[in-house]
Amino acid sequence: MKSTDWLCLQRIVRFGDTDAAGVIHFHHLMRWCHESWEESMNIYGIKALDIFPSIIDNKSTLSTALPIVHCEADFFSPIRVGDDLSVKLVPTKINLRSFEVKYIFQLRQDKNVASALIRHFAINTALSQTCNLPKAIDRWLEASSLNQVISSL
Amino acid sequence: MKSTDWLCLQRIVRFGDTDAAGVIHFHHLMRWCHESWEESMNIYGIKALDIFPSIIDNKSTLSTALPIVHCEADFFSPIRVGDDLSVKLVPTKINLRSFEVKYIFQLRQDKNVASALIRHFAINTALSQTCNLPKAIDRWLEASSLNQVISSL
Amino acid sequence: MKSTDWLCLQRIVRFGDTDAAGVIHFHHLMRWCHESWEESMNIYGIKALDIFPSIIDNKSTLSTALPIVHCEADFFSPIRVGDDLSVKLVPTKINLRSFEVKYIFQLRQDKNVASALIRHFAINTALSQTCNLPKAIDRWLEASSLNQVISSL
Amino acid sequence: MKSTDWLCLQRIVRFGDTDAAGVIHFHHLMRWCHESWEESMNIYGIKALDIFPSIIDNKSTLSTALPIVHCEADFFSPIRVGDDLSVKLVPTKINLRSFEVKYIFQLRQDKNVASALIRHFAINTALSQTCNLPKAIDRWLEASSLNQVISSL
Repeated sequence: MKSTDWLCLQRIVRFGDTDAAGVIHFHHLMRWCHESWEESMNIYGIKALDIFPSIIDNKSTLSTALPIVHCEADFFSPIRVGDDLSVKLVPTKINLRSFEVKYIFQLRQDKNVASALIRHFAINTALSQTCNLPKAIDRWLEASSLNQVISSL
Repeated sequence: MKSTDWLCLQRIVRFGDTDAAGVIHFHHLMRWCHESWEESMNIYGIKALDIFPSIIDNKSTLSTALPIVHCEADFFSPIRVGDDLSVKLVPTKINLRSFEVKYIFQLRQDKNVASALIRHFAINTALSQTCNLPKAIDRWLEASSLNQVISSL
Repeated sequence: MKSTDWLCLQRIVRFGDTDAAGVIHFHHLMRWCHESWEESMNIYGIKALDIFPSIIDNKSTLSTALPIVHCEADFFSPIRVGDDLSVKLVPTKINLRSFEVKYIFQLRQDKNVASALIRHFAINTALSQTCNLPKAIDRWLEASSLNQVISSL
Repeated sequence: MKSTDWLCLQRIVRFGDTDAAGVIHFHHLMRWCHESWEESMNIYGIKALDIFPSIIDNKSTLSTALPIVHCEADFFSPIRVGDDLSVKLVPTKINLRSFEVKYIFQLRQDKNVASALIRHFAINTALSQTCNLPKAIDRWLEASSLNQVISSL
């Protein structure tokens, strides 16, 4: 695996992502971001069930959730069915209890067509209080940060 | 409330439901069906939290789930943004542990543009076994059945 | 119709809007916003087909599109299935060619659970250039602006 | 490329595909089917823009559409976040103007967790009449059919 593999993904636009104006309907970009984040952690080596709750025997499998407190997106160019986008992730740890990921969508490796930002908090779901980020997220944030430094040298 | 109010609903097609062919993208119809079922039970007087699990203090609020085991849909005419559809629900109890709902989508009260069928089972989530339908569902099924008889007289 | 009817709508949270954490999955809020905007214009008296392109005889029915160039959302409290939200729209005309709408989601009329902002530009699709907002949008923006002044008196 | 590469795909379940019951919300399976069909044709060598209309200069780029006239799905086992599913496509040409694809979803290569069927017609959008399937679809159907014969030998 190349050092930055888990921070530069690919996404092909599907027909159901478009609307009758012939280009993507805006909110699908937010879904793409979250799915790219999941894919990034998966490639890095974190299991989905260690981060995202499932429900087994009527109980949530996890006591820490990572709800989104803020999201935003900017759209620069129309995005069409079949477009083969690269998705670059730039994660940043804000403090012990929160982090954000910037997502940059490019066509043909150089043209930015959209960007987005999603900010998460860690919550202890039993106590309904903020808590420290799960260790797996910390590892992913640190490795991503290190990669950005190396890429910029 | 008229006797059949909870079995004949309205749905206006939104722009995000369309794709670049200019008509609805097919799978949104399945979402409309489920949302119509929820709306029907709400109008009839059943609270969403008595039927659909939420998660409070890390535990699921309900021990009975109603998973879908089968769904199908037929599309007869293009459906466009702004179309003001009527949605008729025809629920049927299959046995103590399962039921299905037929959904008929009409434009201008007479032209069928699509229909769908969704079949549910009741599952005790702690035991992972089928179980009897919740009493609230039984009441809704019986009242709906009675209405259909009255309507056909 | 009361003066502000088209700027204060209602939305009941559906089961498909939730994820396995037991609360709404974030990006559905963006869909709710767009659908609320469509509902607002519909109640005000603007036909969907005068604003949103459909495709008839292989041609787009409109030459002006209103693409979204920016969107953002903040989440303050968990939103659960069955929650009966009020959705307040605060539209603002930015200039001749663009406008934005702020959306405020409240539970029980007083508790803000989320807010969002969506900014649109008018584009002449044949020329791929910005253009003036459609007259119908201008009317809706002016009427909404007037209502806000009256409400704040 | 192995002979059947384009008929046996992979899909990892994402968090936004689940609902508060802790498993996938049913209608996402329909989206997965359509996206798998698009991915299959893409791997086989068919460009999305040769099959799916986009809108350029206010005109639809294609005169043939492939609307869905029927879809159905059966669900055999709960599907959870992170599940790494294989998706097998079994396309069948019904006649000159229509075809269907069966989709089989498996966990760990042997356990069927869901299956689905989607049936398409070819429509000349300018004339609003059925027409022959596009040549690219015919090629994909024939190659797929040949593969199924080889696989079963």
